[in-house]
Amino acid sequence: MATVDTSVSPPARVADPGEGISLDELRLAARNHGMPLEALRYDVTPVGLHYLLIHYDIPYLDPGGWRLRIDGHVRQPLTLDLAELQARPQVTQRVTMECAGNGRARLDPRPISQPWLDEAVGTAEWTGTPLAPLLREAGIRDGGADVAFTGADHGVERGVEQDYTRGLPLAEALREDVLLVHTMNGQPLPPQHGAPVRLLVPGWYGMAQVKWLVRVSVLDTPFQGFQNATAYRIKQGPDDVGEPVTRIRPRALMRPPGFPDFQTRERVVDRGVHELIGRAWSGRGAVTRVEVSADGGATWSAAELDPQPGRYAWRSWRWTWHAQEPGRHELCVRARDAAGDVQPVEQPWNRQGMANNQVQRVPVLVR
Amino acid sequence: MATVDTSVSPPARVADPGEGISLDELRLAARNHGMPLEALRYDVTPVGLHYLLIHYDIPYLDPGGWRLRIDGHVRQPLTLDLAELQARPQVTQRVTMECAGNGRARLDPRPISQPWLDEAVGTAEWTGTPLAPLLREAGIRDGGADVAFTGADHGVERGVEQDYTRGLPLAEALREDVLLVHTMNGQPLPPQHGAPVRLLVPGWYGMAQVKWLVRVSVLDTPFQGFQNATAYRIKQGPDDVGEPVTRIRPRALMRPPGFPDFQTRERVVDRGVHELIGRAWSGRGAVTRVEVSADGGATWSAAELDPQPGRYAWRSWRWTWHAQEPGRHELCVRARDAAGDVQPVEQPWNRQGMANNQVQRVPVLVR
Repeated sequence: MATVDTSVSPPARVADPGEGISLDELRLAARNHGMPLEALRYDVTPVGLHYLLIHYDIPYLDPGGWRLRIDGHVRQPLTLDLAELQARPQVTQRVTMECAGNGRARLDPRPISQPWLDEAVGTAEWTGTPLAPLLREAGIRDGGADVAFTGADHGVERGVEQDYTRGLPLAEALREDVLLVHTMNGQPLPPQHGAPVRLLVPGWYGMAQVKWLVRVSVLDTPFQGFQNATAYRIKQGPDDVGEPVTRIRPRALMRPPGFPDFQTRERVVDRGVHELIGRAWSGRGAVTRVEVSADGGATWSAAELDPQPGRYAWRSWRWTWHAQEPGRHELCVRARDAAGDVQPVEQPWNRQGMANNQVQRVPVLVR
Repeated sequence: MATVDTSVSPPARVADPGEGISLDELRLAARNHGMPLEALRYDVTPVGLHYLLIHYDIPYLDPGGWRLRIDGHVRQPLTLDLAELQARPQVTQRVTMECAGNGRARLDPRPISQPWLDEAVGTAEWTGTPLAPLLREAGIRDGGADVAFTGADHGVERGVEQDYTRGLPLAEALREDVLLVHTMNGQPLPPQHGAPVRLLVPGWYGMAQVKWLVRVSVLDTPFQGFQNATAYRIKQGPDDVGEPVTRIRPRALMRPPGFPDFQTRERVVDRGVHELIGRAWSGRGAVTRVEVSADGGATWSAAELDPQPGRYAWRSWRWTWHAQEPGRHELCVRARDAAGDVQPVEQPWNRQGMANNQVQRVPVLVR
């Protein structure tokens, strides 16, 4: 395992009290981006509005030269090219994807990493072929534990040089809805979303959806690579082992009403009746309830829910706000899922800002 | 002219010495985005990688209901729908577009606004119909001065509520290469790039390329709206009138070599020979020379230039770097254009961080 100088690749840290956003965080925010929240109007997020988190650089893979290797603890390693993958049975699924670090920059103290506020989410129609039949064709040998998925993106993180690689429990990799996808919203996967092929693990945070996929390797031991053992863990202190980040916790977002100020992004609405709309999702169970507060979280009312459009796609909600009182108001929304999880009003702080789902807060001036 | 409370819509300001990036700036950076610099490999920037700066919210305009009004100081006001616009002569042009605020967050002291580093650029194949014949059909009356272009995006900026509107001198609006575009890279304009129709003024910074265009109005006096009279001006003090921001100043960017650290985005390369590649552009004249420095700007060497692919599209360059000495190096690149402008090595500071084109600096660790 190669290592790199800590002056280039420093250890993780948490911001000092009152410390502004650093230039390191800005470099990440300038290239990665969230979904502008007005795009909550779309059932399927148009390409270019879907959130994007790229660990290193976007690699260029010639689709004609691309090969996927399936190997490791199998009887018969396989190699597929893109035409072979596309000649197999094809499935299209609408799936909501969210970055595990969403909400991180709202934490206090703030973990230093990609500084998401609320908008690291998007929903796409993903088309590809199921992975499980390919793993069965390769013939998993007894004692398979995890499957390691490797992308072509290369970089260094906290001193550890690596091709981005994530391990997934074998039982999850064998789910029939786990796909090798080459098409997004009916178009070839764009470079920034993993062209020519990425992994899709519906219900899991984005770190599992390995982009620029080139290798699928069955392991007979739990995967201990950086992205599972170090990066994507929920921990309190720097030396905690922590818990792995897995499925998406429930979250609801609203399209902020009215119009914004350019600089502060704060909202202005006219006094009157406003229909608030938004979406809610969870990777742990269907969304069962969405509640809205127009008084900063003091009181809550149930929103109206549209039908759930597939198990892993966000669900629409709407709520009528009678904005009578001129002045400042704070709108909040929270979701509950069938697993019984509900979004917390107070921050669920952890040192890396992972799987954070505190409620959205939208300050609004009524005039 | 409606105004809004300064607590929601504050006046312009410059950061205090040592002040970190503010939450206001982060809110903008989380939704707008630059072009990841590795995308300099593409002649035409894939959708979703092209830079994006949206003043307010992305409005939704039903393409079937969209109408463009051409009016003002004309003999015969016109109204066009999308089918009529698409039935007119169509032109496709490859044009590089850059935000006037590119480089702002590298200035010291830092103007508070969208905090761009170097990457607010992109090149697309834009398709649409020339504006000039439509203006001639409407019949410009004697004494026409500016043309005001209004988008459907509504917001407030420094207290001034507005639909985004920009004025352009009549002579520029009558250039044959100024287009009303509906197609980007062969696909319908995405929502975030101004669907269904935006203005294209090749060679000018992005603020002139009005998105979600709904009205073109010929004026018999110079346009005095906010975006021309206040926002997009080069000024030193808060009360200066300043100079208007117009055409793009020359700039070259390199694709950073090697691989990055996730957090710092700093680069690591192996000792040896590296071909550096990048692009250069100017809205004021053809790019005539690109120079690279491998020692932080102390010495410069000419890069090799590919042919210029059209007047307003970026030009490719390449330069071979013999990275012999292990340790820290700083790579720089600068462009010169036929108008005689060359990028400055020292910052050309101005209070709003407009039309800033100081040279790119890429720190690299050679190992």
